[in-house]
Amino acid sequence: MSERVLVNQLQGLADGPVSVSGWVETVRDQKKVQFVILRDETGAVQLVNPATREVGEDATDEERAALALTEMISAMTHGTFLTVHGVLKHDERVKLGGVEIKIGTLDVAAEALPETPIAADSHMDKRMDWRFIDLRQRRNNLIFRVQTTLEHAMRTYWVERDYIEIHTPKLMSSPSESRAELFQLEYFGDQTAYLAQSPQHFKQMAQAAGFGKVFEIADAFRADPSFTSRHATEFTSIDAEISWIDSHEDVAAMQEELLATALTAVKEKHGDEIEELFGLTVEVPTLPFPRIPLAEAHEIVEARGYEIPRTDGDLDPEGERQICAHVKETYGHDFVFITDYHPGIRPFYHMRNPETGMTKSYDLLYRGTEITTGAQREHRIDVLEEQATEKGLELEGLEHYLDFFRYGVAPHGGFGMGLARLLMLLLGESSIREVTYLFRGPTRLAP
Amino acid sequence: MSERVLVNQLQGLADGPVSVSGWVETVRDQKKVQFVILRDETGAVQLVNPATREVGEDATDEERAALALTEMISAMTHGTFLTVHGVLKHDERVKLGGVEIKIGTLDVAAEALPETPIAADSHMDKRMDWRFIDLRQRRNNLIFRVQTTLEHAMRTYWVERDYIEIHTPKLMSSPSESRAELFQLEYFGDQTAYLAQSPQHFKQMAQAAGFGKVFEIADAFRADPSFTSRHATEFTSIDAEISWIDSHEDVAAMQEELLATALTAVKEKHGDEIEELFGLTVEVPTLPFPRIPLAEAHEIVEARGYEIPRTDGDLDPEGERQICAHVKETYGHDFVFITDYHPGIRPFYHMRNPETGMTKSYDLLYRGTEITTGAQREHRIDVLEEQATEKGLELEGLEHYLDFFRYGVAPHGGFGMGLARLLMLLLGESSIREVTYLFRGPTRLAP
Repeated sequence: MSERVLVNQLQGLADGPVSVSGWVETVRDQKKVQFVILRDETGAVQLVNPATREVGEDATDEERAALALTEMISAMTHGTFLTVHGVLKHDERVKLGGVEIKIGTLDVAAEALPETPIAADSHMDKRMDWRFIDLRQRRNNLIFRVQTTLEHAMRTYWVERDYIEIHTPKLMSSPSESRAELFQLEYFGDQTAYLAQSPQHFKQMAQAAGFGKVFEIADAFRADPSFTSRHATEFTSIDAEISWIDSHEDVAAMQEELLATALTAVKEKHGDEIEELFGLTVEVPTLPFPRIPLAEAHEIVEARGYEIPRTDGDLDPEGERQICAHVKETYGHDFVFITDYHPGIRPFYHMRNPETGMTKSYDLLYRGTEITTGAQREHRIDVLEEQATEKGLELEGLEHYLDFFRYGVAPHGGFGMGLARLLMLLLGESSIREVTYLFRGPTRLAP
Repeated sequence: MSERVLVNQLQGLADGPVSVSGWVETVRDQKKVQFVILRDETGAVQLVNPATREVGEDATDEERAALALTEMISAMTHGTFLTVHGVLKHDERVKLGGVEIKIGTLDVAAEALPETPIAADSHMDKRMDWRFIDLRQRRNNLIFRVQTTLEHAMRTYWVERDYIEIHTPKLMSSPSESRAELFQLEYFGDQTAYLAQSPQHFKQMAQAAGFGKVFEIADAFRADPSFTSRHATEFTSIDAEISWIDSHEDVAAMQEELLATALTAVKEKHGDEIEELFGLTVEVPTLPFPRIPLAEAHEIVEARGYEIPRTDGDLDPEGERQICAHVKETYGHDFVFITDYHPGIRPFYHMRNPETGMTKSYDLLYRGTEITTGAQREHRIDVLEEQATEKGLELEGLEHYLDFFRYGVAPHGGFGMGLARLLMLLLGESSIREVTYLFRGPTRLAP
């Protein structure tokens, strides 16, 4: 590769010849001098060119070249990608990093059309039509560097603890969670395949396979017609599943440590930039996170004056915001585990506590929104079949899943967490659309 | 979680009380003494129990309990998951790690049905029906620990070099590669969605977005009716794409360094165990990998006495084996980049070298099989449209993709690599089915 220098390396270099590649963010075309702000993936730098507006008929080649360069810069469109070969000069007066580059020559890689179809403040739907331009914004670029750090810290946490990374299939012969909101497709003529709504079945399979501890960060699909700020038809699901637990509390303990580790990494690597571009401080949560049984959460929310309209006993979105506000006020904490859910509002495979009749499961809320469901799974085949039947499920369609429990399996549990929700709440964004590389919803399948 | 001890920690512990959890691999039920081999995710340990075959009518509670334990062990089925509480004793005569556990009590978590439906040497298709049992084999477990190390080493290589991790959508409004071998589904009534065959479009989009360097390890889908040992309808694709390259050589240089780094990590962490269970030594490749232009590869293969039946100029599987054999004999190398492919056998978006008329692309072969195609992409919109038209493609269906090149973009390139092929060749396996958690093919959609 050429001797390309990144913008964030310039301050450390001595004055002299340098080549930088990036795209044109702004052009200030003054009469006597031209300024170009060139941005690359690490920052922006000012390029400068003393303008040559006209030359005489007996002009030298050099003068003609200077005129051509000036005219090229005057005609330059925003977004054009180019490499500048020039001379670096440190100058305290330059606000942008205290350096500038005097342009020698410009190699244009690809010129942009003159009319940029969106601006930073265009309507979200318009920005999604032109997501590749929208992502050039510093804020948006930072979102995906934060995502990278967050995921790598989580995977490193797991790998250091001997978890096995699995890739479960997304094409299935039967639904993984429920028959509702399921995408289906024709599979080689006479078969029907379903897109996995979660890796639930197959991460549990790893426990029957004796893998012990597994994780997966991968796509999941829901044919969900919702248009809320926190639903998508395709999303990245962060999943873990572990054997030989005593209860869901072992899962919760792993997840809270995982999150504290990941948020510490984000704060260390991007804390200052998040402060600058999002105006907020990354908070690393203390351990353990608060735990509140669902029934108690109800009472707290009601005491705050909010009547939950749902009749099934679960919290609604406003209820989630209320209980999180309470936790923040009372414990100064951004996270809370809500526990002791009634089996009626949980899937058949959640294990139940015979003493309380409640499931051994939790939801994890973060800054007002649910990001996770975790649980110990029922691994005793007779109980599992009973609970499935009680929910009105046909055991026939579940045969492959039920087989996992017939040849021995460890007590186990795990959680699933939406990457986009976590990022959205971490960065104080209003919608998962803002933190998804290319959002997919009921009316959004392109670009 | 309970005070569970892993099998691989036992040798380091002093004699005394201990609890271990795992599944029953074998029971040796001798008249005077019973042995159980218990396996967990880290190894196997021998449990021992002096048999109590009968007790008198005036037996103590303790004697009755001893009888019950003996009978329980006699009736124990293979694959039963249990926790043993007992007493650890170091004993040099015990072949399995020099330790054994005298059984105190056994807590059965889940009993296995008595008839295990497969054995280690069952036919592959049968083993795939019962994959969760098949995966209990040490060899199979090791495959996925190798996979974990391989992927983590690759991601760490990229993260340390400031690559951004992206998650591209797998639901698309138009095909990503070609209209052939495409899964399609009905999307909210009147729309048609396609499953991504590769992240090609969207990793290129990241270059127009100014991300600079990106990677993704994710699912890709091909409605490929092949039944070969190296094709699947769903597979894990390892992808990277980088900006500001001079040619495909910059991509190749990154990929060879990446692979050498990843294989070094595998050798360090699992080299001994791979030697033991697969009977082969992990070879870390030297840099640079050999490069051979396709035309020269043809001559070499022909000189070895093999006539390639394909007429399009590409290598066929036997040709790939032959050229790899030549490279191994000549350079002692397991990898080879084949370069200078004619545009006729490459996709329209590969950049061409105006001097030679060939594409700026390569295939990477490893131990006889192609694992990667890499290339510099054509980023000049006029040339790109021309090349698409020349291939008979309708520009209309490509509009979203072509837009990425109209508002400025850096010269860029990248590669896609099949995770399962890499693992198969690394471990000397005969089929990607053996190294895929749950294989998907034309007649394989379950479990």
